Amino acid sequence: MPEAAKSLNASALKVVLVSPRNPLNIGAAARAMSNFGFPELRLVNPYEVAFREARSAVKAQAVLEQAREFATVTEAVADCSLVVGTTAIGHRILEHPLRRLELGGKIIARKLASAPVALLFGSEKFGLSNDDMSYCHWLMRIPSREEHASMNLGQAVAVCLYEIIRNPSAAKAVPEEKRPAAAAHIERITEFLDTILDHSGYVHPRVEGSTHAKIRRLVRRLRLNSHDSEVWLGMLRQIRWKLAKHKPEK
Amino acid sequence: MPEAAKSLNASALKVVLVSPRNPLNIGAAARAMSNFGFPELRLVNPYEVAFREARSAVKAQAVLEQAREFATVTEAVADCSLVVGTTAIGHRILEHPLRRLELGGKIIARKLASAPVALLFGSEKFGLSNDDMSYCHWLMRIPSREEHASMNLGQAVAVCLYEIIRNPSAAKAVPEEKRPAAAAHIERITEFLDTILDHSGYVHPRVEGSTHAKIRRLVRRLRLNSHDSEVWLGMLRQIRWKLAKHKPEK
Repeated sequence: MPEAAKSLNASALKVVLVSPRNPLNIGAAARAMSNFGFPELRLVNPYEVAFREARSAVKAQAVLEQAREFATVTEAVADCSLVVGTTAIGHRILEHPLRRLELGGKIIARKLASAPVALLFGSEKFGLSNDDMSYCHWLMRIPSREEHASMNLGQAVAVCLYEIIRNPSAAKAVPEEKRPAAAAHIERITEFLDTILDHSGYVHPRVEGSTHAKIRRLVRRLRLNSHDSEVWLGMLRQIRWKLAKHKPEK
Repeated sequence: MPEAAKSLNASALKVVLVSPRNPLNIGAAARAMSNFGFPELRLVNPYEVAFREARSAVKAQAVLEQAREFATVTEAVADCSLVVGTTAIGHRILEHPLRRLELGGKIIARKLASAPVALLFGSEKFGLSNDDMSYCHWLMRIPSREEHASMNLGQAVAVCLYEIIRNPSAAKAVPEEKRPAAAAHIERITEFLDTILDHSGYVHPRVEGSTHAKIRRLVRRLRLNSHDSEVWLGMLRQIRWKLAKHKPEK
């Protein structure tokens, strides 16, 4: 099972492009579907040339080959028990309940477990018409800026599908850190650095004690991992050796 | 303040495209930035023709006009205190800590409050090189399918920016329902429907009582809002009137 679609019934989602006109956009929508593991693309009344050209697009062949064409929205969503339209409009009074993507995506992801869901995207120029929207149970809005709300079709599809596959527990997960360096290594690094700074004339004899403590804290704040501490030790050992060789007589 | 960028210091994010080659992709990246309210685009060593063509792209002029060009990654990220690279690779052993977008986006959003952050995207063909990545504090991965992980540049930018502006509390928000219909309206609808079905010969006299109760429950399950209940009342009133006119003599 692909990671993106883990524990998600991704094939129950039907991505429906209504009257798409631009082959690049059809191809981009298919590519995002392939990236996120959604196999079922449906096209309502596509501009034929655009659809033919999109089919030759690289990187999303499987999705495009299985894409189905429909004459009307009614037919394209006939087997779906939830139909959701996407829109860039946030404020115009709509006849439909409007949900932000963060919430809508969650509802869709849950629904997919039990029933097919259609997610409608309108044409590049006009979005979904009022007639298209009348087939929808509710509308979903990507939270873009009011001043420039209208998104590119391929990008809108990508963002919606990402929200649907998004795994909230991944946001809480703390990434695995590399094994931290052992205290003994850190202490050896501190000693090497001490010696090097001493040989370099950095440490003033009068404040030697407090400088050593400062350096000890400084090295600990590096929070070195085990691998990197070895590399640092190697570098410092070499520098110390070189400096000792050339150590001027006091 | 645009909705997308609410309580987010969006201008502190520097979107850095490293060696982009395709003007459509530069334009698409700029458009997504405009959609989500991020003004600062930086280009490292772009293919000049591509950059010129992208500048003429519609719908993201403000972002493109202010875009800055740099010869190297070092210069492009010089003022940033966090540098994050994006990658499609999930499993190859990388020298860098790797965070999924859900977590990485959260960390970036938080960091933007106090310091500039650079978000690096590699070229369409090769992604970020090992050398580019060496400037990064960590890498961020969009959770796409292993079998087809590589995303289109414009779509990758859109998805990352969406995660950064994403508002978790919007996912918890329950959308405002329209005021539910008053019980008196629902009861009138029930009565009208009763009468209509009665006149239509739907209700068998012998089971009349149980049918009425069924209809009462049926109407309540519609969960009509106040506005829709008025519309239904109007329709039913008309049907009742028409049927009464033509009511056959018993």
